[in-house]
Amino acid sequence: MQFISQTTSDGVVESSFTVGGVPGVLWSPDVGADPAPLVLMGHPGGLHKKAGGLVARAAHLVTVFGFHAAAIDAPGHGDRERSASDAAWVDEMQRARRAGEPLGSIVAAFNASIAERAVPEWRATLDALQALPGIDADRPVGYSGMTLATEIGFRLAAAEPRIGAVGLGAAFASDALLDVARGVSVPVQFLLPWDDPEIGRESGLALYDAIGSAEKSLHAFPGPHQSVPSFEAEDFARFLARHLLPETHSGA
Amino acid sequence: MQFISQTTSDGVVESSFTVGGVPGVLWSPDVGADPAPLVLMGHPGGLHKKAGGLVARAAHLVTVFGFHAAAIDAPGHGDRERSASDAAWVDEMQRARRAGEPLGSIVAAFNASIAERAVPEWRATLDALQALPGIDADRPVGYSGMTLATEIGFRLAAAEPRIGAVGLGAAFASDALLDVARGVSVPVQFLLPWDDPEIGRESGLALYDAIGSAEKSLHAFPGPHQSVPSFEAEDFARFLARHLLPETHSGA
Repeated sequence: MQFISQTTSDGVVESSFTVGGVPGVLWSPDVGADPAPLVLMGHPGGLHKKAGGLVARAAHLVTVFGFHAAAIDAPGHGDRERSASDAAWVDEMQRARRAGEPLGSIVAAFNASIAERAVPEWRATLDALQALPGIDADRPVGYSGMTLATEIGFRLAAAEPRIGAVGLGAAFASDALLDVARGVSVPVQFLLPWDDPEIGRESGLALYDAIGSAEKSLHAFPGPHQSVPSFEAEDFARFLARHLLPETHSGA
Repeated sequence: MQFISQTTSDGVVESSFTVGGVPGVLWSPDVGADPAPLVLMGHPGGLHKKAGGLVARAAHLVTVFGFHAAAIDAPGHGDRERSASDAAWVDEMQRARRAGEPLGSIVAAFNASIAERAVPEWRATLDALQALPGIDADRPVGYSGMTLATEIGFRLAAAEPRIGAVGLGAAFASDALLDVARGVSVPVQFLLPWDDPEIGRESGLALYDAIGSAEKSLHAFPGPHQSVPSFEAEDFARFLARHLLPETHSGA
């Protein structure tokens, strides 16, 4: 793990790093506090580790609950080069969108391919971050993300026992992803955009139904997947606090 | 309005009253505070104004957020006599349940009949309660309830402009109730029991879809309608606080 730069603003220390060549960023409380749990934040497809909404949610987790939050660029996203085969997927996706064709099967296959590559990168990043003194490696780890980050998150939650609570949503219910969801057993908060023009609500309902966890909540909201209400982000932060923080700290 | 008795326990003053012969109960903060908004609490079908879960949620609203909360017995419930025609409905419902027949159309018609009688009773109760000095009649009023109380709540929210935010769930999506839901425009939090043996999830999805409000959230949870997770009740209290309390008081 290599640290590249560090800035502090509004109570949040932002540290850029790389792990095995994958660029990432860690947001931490700027006051010397006891070690605190970590939340991994996946960015949506087509965006990157410092997407606006992601950074705002990270700052909320850090300043309100004292979490550390971390993001990495997914394969072919942000500061990473896009491979020729990923570029071909993107071309095909854009062609189908222009032609008004259904995107589900193309996006699901592309995202599954990225997710299979992203899971070992997240696990290596988690190894490196948990070795830092400020991060409480004895507490379970959270994960948050929609669209592409949901493909990654289901797979990460099914494969990685350190993940203790996840917030996901807005992904196509391919047979492969439904299978992965059945193997998830940690608490899940699942967001369903009720009126997304590309991701049908049936996908969200089928994925929620498939999730193997005893505690799973489906939260639907009007509009497309970009219009998550701010109170849902705040509720998700409380969900993470309930499952990741020691009991005395989770009452906010 | 006649007050009958008053007790105080754990920070909550409980006052029994009648309005126009309908028995009710008001829960209020026991410390002299500024006038605070009111939340009306409907009880489920077959239960009454002091059902255990209802009283617990009322105490949470009073002690955590400083609300007043009030419940009345629905027609034919609690301390009220059941009419011969209501008794015939109940007999028919119990016969269908024993025979393993679908209950939806019977329950929906029975509950609609009760709800039509209950709405004017709630409005008269609201008139009386808002005349009390402790209740802030300038703030919007909340309403909460499942099953029978959802039939009542949709109709009350559509008819009564003082209602400003409602939490509902677990009702049969009859054509009549879908029509009423389309006329509701205040923020709604709607609970969907994902695995209820009597109320199919399609009813919840259809009702949520029909709600006319710009802000509407669907929260699904595993199990039957009796198994609402405690964090959903807490989240609903925050939803009420967001919509009913002045801004400076709604950050809890």
